[in-house]
Amino acid sequence: MSVTLDGPLAGLSLNTATVREQWTLAEIIPACRRFGITGVAPWRDQIAHIGLDETERLIKGEDLTVTGVCRGGMFTWSTDAERQAMFDSNRTAIDEAATLDAQCLVLVVGGLAPGSKDMPAAREQVAEALATLLPEARAAGVTLAIEPLHPMYAADRACVNTLGQANDLCDMLGDGIGVAVDIYHVWWDPALATEIARAGDRILGLHVCDWLVPTTDLLLDRGMMGDGVIDIPAIRAMVEKAGYDGHAEVEIFSAETWWKKPPEEVLRICGERYCSVV
Amino acid sequence: MSVTLDGPLAGLSLNTATVREQWTLAEIIPACRRFGITGVAPWRDQIAHIGLDETERLIKGEDLTVTGVCRGGMFTWSTDAERQAMFDSNRTAIDEAATLDAQCLVLVVGGLAPGSKDMPAAREQVAEALATLLPEARAAGVTLAIEPLHPMYAADRACVNTLGQANDLCDMLGDGIGVAVDIYHVWWDPALATEIARAGDRILGLHVCDWLVPTTDLLLDRGMMGDGVIDIPAIRAMVEKAGYDGHAEVEIFSAETWWKKPPEEVLRICGERYCSVV
Repeated sequence: MSVTLDGPLAGLSLNTATVREQWTLAEIIPACRRFGITGVAPWRDQIAHIGLDETERLIKGEDLTVTGVCRGGMFTWSTDAERQAMFDSNRTAIDEAATLDAQCLVLVVGGLAPGSKDMPAAREQVAEALATLLPEARAAGVTLAIEPLHPMYAADRACVNTLGQANDLCDMLGDGIGVAVDIYHVWWDPALATEIARAGDRILGLHVCDWLVPTTDLLLDRGMMGDGVIDIPAIRAMVEKAGYDGHAEVEIFSAETWWKKPPEEVLRICGERYCSVV
Repeated sequence: MSVTLDGPLAGLSLNTATVREQWTLAEIIPACRRFGITGVAPWRDQIAHIGLDETERLIKGEDLTVTGVCRGGMFTWSTDAERQAMFDSNRTAIDEAATLDAQCLVLVVGGLAPGSKDMPAAREQVAEALATLLPEARAAGVTLAIEPLHPMYAADRACVNTLGQANDLCDMLGDGIGVAVDIYHVWWDPALATEIARAGDRILGLHVCDWLVPTTDLLLDRGMMGDGVIDIPAIRAMVEKAGYDGHAEVEIFSAETWWKKPPEEVLRICGERYCSVV
């Protein structure tokens, strides 16, 4: 088993949601290094579980690149208390991303405000929250990454549903913010090639998994790369042509399949598929 | 109970999928009239079940407007045999729409070709099939309606996922083809207002139901109008501003809720919600 950082999986990062049901970060981080995976993208609840200091110590001890911290965002609010809690949470997330020297803080922007059906208003709140937080992120040395989510999450998770919207926000906001391209969310988009080219050096991450047919659950039935219908090499070629040369980050939410397998098997297959189909 | 055709539900059409598990068309068509619903949009499998002649006799006997026949399409193919079967099926669908004097033949264009991951190729096949069928539809006096489907159906049902794509196809193809606006499929689209205005007099139908939070099944968990998060009056105002003055067609696929209720109750609530929230 490779323990080098320049092996065949040197371009692979593990989003820690992929084995979240089997392992804590204290187990995931050393496992990445054992498998030759050189990047990691931890979730904040998993960080909280073992503590930020311990997370930092483990990641730096294994010399892993933090390709992103998951996640900030959820910017939409109905009450002043919700608005304040949202800003508090995002400020903590920025601090955590700074501590971990993350390449970006991934932002899932939030869906409709609680009780609201007003999508344009939700999108305005997102723009307002980003405009407020971006200077603070810049000051902390943290780059923000807007992750457009699949339109099936528009109501409850993210009202930014295309790369075009994310690029528009970046155009409006200026430096220090870019996009995370998760192929699961954007593969269907007829404007995909155009908007990836437009994003250019704003592409801060490439997240990979696969779209299964049939998909049995809107949230927790993502597939392993190669098991679905996404033309992953085509999208990877688009982002590379646009200038992205960072890690591919595997992120699989899979309650019935991958979260039930031994985590070593999951990592082994992630590595195999990264080499064969990504 | 109203039996007039100018009552409060005179602008309502019933897509027959809404009570498909409870009733055949022989029961659905007279029920529309009893409830004061003046339009109907039958599915082809339901037509086949009682026969095209009987469907025509019943619909004309009740003086209902056929707001659409569901459905043609599924244009993508991998083999010559699949291609031929697709054209055969669509030619029959055009004949059926002509016989029933339907306002349009609704087209669900198909997803990736069997075994393929090539989305651009699928979209080219759709354009090719439409270009072949449109002159035949014109000759038969049948208007074609492209229905963009939600991106979560891109793989297996429709690779036309936005009104923008549908409008592009209409621009390319010319007269005799337009769009069906199903709010379930398009409500999330940041370009919705722009593309509805662009569609203008090409809008051939307005399909209504609602997006539930949470949604428990990708296909069969659509909500009754008012039970979800879609701002239906806002979208209805957009299509009316664009010039559409036809029926609102209620189409609810709901395996666990509405397909299990007594069909009279379903129609009664459809009527109430049409008056209160559409």
